[in-house]
Amino acid sequence: MKRNFFYASMVMLCLSCNQHDQTNDSEKVYGSRPAVVTDRPDMQNKIKGPLAYAPNVPEASQEDTVEVKFDVTHQLFQVSKTVSFTAWMFGGSVPGPVLKVRQGQTIRFSMTDRSNDTMKNMAMLVNMMPMPHSIDFHAAMVNPEDKYRSINPGETIQFTWTANYPGVFMYHCGTPMVLMHMIYGMIGMVIVEPRSGYPGKADHEFAIVQNEYYFRQQGNAYIPDTTLALKKTPSFVTFNGKVGQYLFDPLKVKAGERVRLYLLNAGPNNATAFHVIGTILDKVWLDGNPKNELVGMQSVYLGPASGAIVEFVIPEKGSYTFVDHSFADATMGAIGTIKAE
Amino acid sequence: MKRNFFYASMVMLCLSCNQHDQTNDSEKVYGSRPAVVTDRPDMQNKIKGPLAYAPNVPEASQEDTVEVKFDVTHQLFQVSKTVSFTAWMFGGSVPGPVLKVRQGQTIRFSMTDRSNDTMKNMAMLVNMMPMPHSIDFHAAMVNPEDKYRSINPGETIQFTWTANYPGVFMYHCGTPMVLMHMIYGMIGMVIVEPRSGYPGKADHEFAIVQNEYYFRQQGNAYIPDTTLALKKTPSFVTFNGKVGQYLFDPLKVKAGERVRLYLLNAGPNNATAFHVIGTILDKVWLDGNPKNELVGMQSVYLGPASGAIVEFVIPEKGSYTFVDHSFADATMGAIGTIKAE
Amino acid sequence: MKRNFFYASMVMLCLSCNQHDQTNDSEKVYGSRPAVVTDRPDMQNKIKGPLAYAPNVPEASQEDTVEVKFDVTHQLFQVSKTVSFTAWMFGGSVPGPVLKVRQGQTIRFSMTDRSNDTMKNMAMLVNMMPMPHSIDFHAAMVNPEDKYRSINPGETIQFTWTANYPGVFMYHCGTPMVLMHMIYGMIGMVIVEPRSGYPGKADHEFAIVQNEYYFRQQGNAYIPDTTLALKKTPSFVTFNGKVGQYLFDPLKVKAGERVRLYLLNAGPNNATAFHVIGTILDKVWLDGNPKNELVGMQSVYLGPASGAIVEFVIPEKGSYTFVDHSFADATMGAIGTIKAE
Repeated sequence: MKRNFFYASMVMLCLSCNQHDQTNDSEKVYGSRPAVVTDRPDMQNKIKGPLAYAPNVPEASQEDTVEVKFDVTHQLFQVSKTVSFTAWMFGGSVPGPVLKVRQGQTIRFSMTDRSNDTMKNMAMLVNMMPMPHSIDFHAAMVNPEDKYRSINPGETIQFTWTANYPGVFMYHCGTPMVLMHMIYGMIGMVIVEPRSGYPGKADHEFAIVQNEYYFRQQGNAYIPDTTLALKKTPSFVTFNGKVGQYLFDPLKVKAGERVRLYLLNAGPNNATAFHVIGTILDKVWLDGNPKNELVGMQSVYLGPASGAIVEFVIPEKGSYTFVDHSFADATMGAIGTIKAE
Repeated sequence: MKRNFFYASMVMLCLSCNQHDQTNDSEKVYGSRPAVVTDRPDMQNKIKGPLAYAPNVPEASQEDTVEVKFDVTHQLFQVSKTVSFTAWMFGGSVPGPVLKVRQGQTIRFSMTDRSNDTMKNMAMLVNMMPMPHSIDFHAAMVNPEDKYRSINPGETIQFTWTANYPGVFMYHCGTPMVLMHMIYGMIGMVIVEPRSGYPGKADHEFAIVQNEYYFRQQGNAYIPDTTLALKKTPSFVTFNGKVGQYLFDPLKVKAGERVRLYLLNAGPNNATAFHVIGTILDKVWLDGNPKNELVGMQSVYLGPASGAIVEFVIPEKGSYTFVDHSFADATMGAIGTIKAE
Repeated sequence: MKRNFFYASMVMLCLSCNQHDQTNDSEKVYGSRPAVVTDRPDMQNKIKGPLAYAPNVPEASQEDTVEVKFDVTHQLFQVSKTVSFTAWMFGGSVPGPVLKVRQGQTIRFSMTDRSNDTMKNMAMLVNMMPMPHSIDFHAAMVNPEDKYRSINPGETIQFTWTANYPGVFMYHCGTPMVLMHMIYGMIGMVIVEPRSGYPGKADHEFAIVQNEYYFRQQGNAYIPDTTLALKKTPSFVTFNGKVGQYLFDPLKVKAGERVRLYLLNAGPNNATAFHVIGTILDKVWLDGNPKNELVGMQSVYLGPASGAIVEFVIPEKGSYTFVDHSFADATMGAIGTIKAE
């Protein structure tokens, strides 16, 4: 393995102050020590850190440094009652777990490639072959050649990064061919809270990751198909990995309450026109940064690899359907319900 | 019919004031009395309220409450000289009539499903079967389960809603399958003026709704095709429902004048890259809200179910073509001319 | 040739001042003298003005008026090691040369249609037939009917325009069918610096034009295919005209440096989700106007005919890949590397 040189700089930026800007943006950390790759999988801790499975939103730690670990596995994943496939997953789920940290916090991240762990993979249909994987955090500012390198089955990678900007960011596998790794399910969300927390208060918070699946059928098996992905013609589009799951199991709130959604469009190809039927997005923070505010929006159009925080009030008791209003996508599964008692 | 409970709240929001924000945003009305559905069509008033057919922009009423009515019919609609189809229409047109109200105004809306009215439908080719329809106003904050419910042919629905946010919003039929109802023509625009009117003054105002048609041919008949719509591959893309209509019948202005366009991308699937050849959009208000301002734009990229107000100056005498600069769309019909004397 | 009437107005706009707005935006020039078309090609000056080939960024002149000339030719163009086609080009390149001017500057532009110049075109495979061409500057405010008119092979068009708005703008051939002329390569970038220059200072500046190619193969020849372009299904997507060129010949910077990119999505059809792996876009100016600022973005989603300026810091030594994160596009060629020593 080649040697990497340590490079880290802490830069004091003197930003022009204005009275509306209370965020302390003056400290940024660029780069970090070289990643360390070992062949010792950490069997004790398969998952660790301020993580939760969407739509749940984890609590950020208050420490300066936070330990985070999740692993890669190949397992059967259920997209709908009738469709399952052998997914490649971060933290055993599609999307991978939501990670929530604070601006300025340093993340000590480690991940084991357990794609060679076949014990629990008896049910897999195809594509169970172990292979290299990696992780690319859009919230980090580090040398991808070093930190986002591919590791082999059984290996563990460890590296640190510091969250310089608040927002809702994507993570994904960056091993070639990247498009294939993403349509196999290797996507997830990082939320970076501003130093002083997000302004305002919501009664409920949910995390929603939108992604596209591209499948061909082979007998009963569904197999992610890169050729279809290159044509950008998905088979299914989902919120949090499963077709229409919140139609059957709605998000629950009360009339009059304020709801905050952490949105990520993981793509890998198409935009989403996110809309909640029956209400208006009174705040939209593009890529989850409160400085990028739009107000009074009927929808927000997010390209692939884009995030947003949206807030809205539930006006009265009822059933509020949220969709990708690029309506073919809603029809292909990007649809869910918020039930207000 | 199940009973609905009345829930309405008026919330005083204390917004952080700043010197650039003169808009009084402090009152919002959430929800409204349950919708009422009757089987008595109102034969006297088929259309009522501050409505106009695009590109015309109606005047908003100054009253606190405004009565609005338009109906659903199934009628032949001409998309171009050679293409017509049996459309499902609000107010007898594709797009439906433009409604203009004021922020804070309460709209008493009613609509009759006249899809069973076959008297004037002799010319229809196919798809004349009466069916349930509904309406979903993106400008409203109400329970969709109640107000946006489907009504049967011959029935009339009545409900009220209050315009909380200024902007350019979509309305459309929300009856499953929604994608099909939209490609049959059930789309339209609501303009909500800020309480104190839109800032600035334009010499001309026009309303432009962009939409996609998805047709298969059956003999001489064109039939909207949901399978094509699911593939997002339109047959035609139009401004105000007809292929290239403003090439033949240009919008008329004078050199040096300021033009304001109320834009709505009704989709149902694709974005528009709206551009006016020969000038620059000096103001763009995303979703029609002056707080969401961009300046000096060569184009504005609007996802489906997004609106905008754009303003520009006509620099000199001439002929200014406006297009969706996703140029395949312009080639498929999303092209028109502004003629400046 | 019909006579054109001279119309030019200089309008003093009294903008509402606020303390954050130091830009002097008070003078705009609308329209210009009629274009002049002659049949005398200027054989001495084939290219003239503050021009550079991307990724290079030219220096703007400080004069009130600047002479600019480049011509149209039909020549073989290499898209990748194995793919070449007979391109229609501005200034002998795809994209055409980057033009950089200052806000308020008047451009005296001339262009000769040399598509009939067959001397150096021996290597061309197909589509070498001379034909009319034109140029449409998105940065200009002039009558397109006059200035953007098509000229015949051997003719020269001359017209002036004034840069009213700062930004990153597209130019392209506007001769019908426009979509065809664009996929043959007739696209390019104009940068208009604000009167007082762009705020801040970057260590490196690069110009990146993204475009789509739509080819069918005919023997060994690649031929732009309008039918494919109408379906929006590109064969290749590139930065500065060549598939993955900066993978082989990276942009070179140093760790810790600030990089500014002038981005243009020339389309002609699809959006780009521009992203730099390993860093965060700390400033994004939509259409290149500093008033349209977003901060802390993981990506910027630009429709066709949209520009942006993005800035970011290179956190440490390494290799930073930039992509269209609509990942099918990256896979089709919209990928490059920034190498940081």
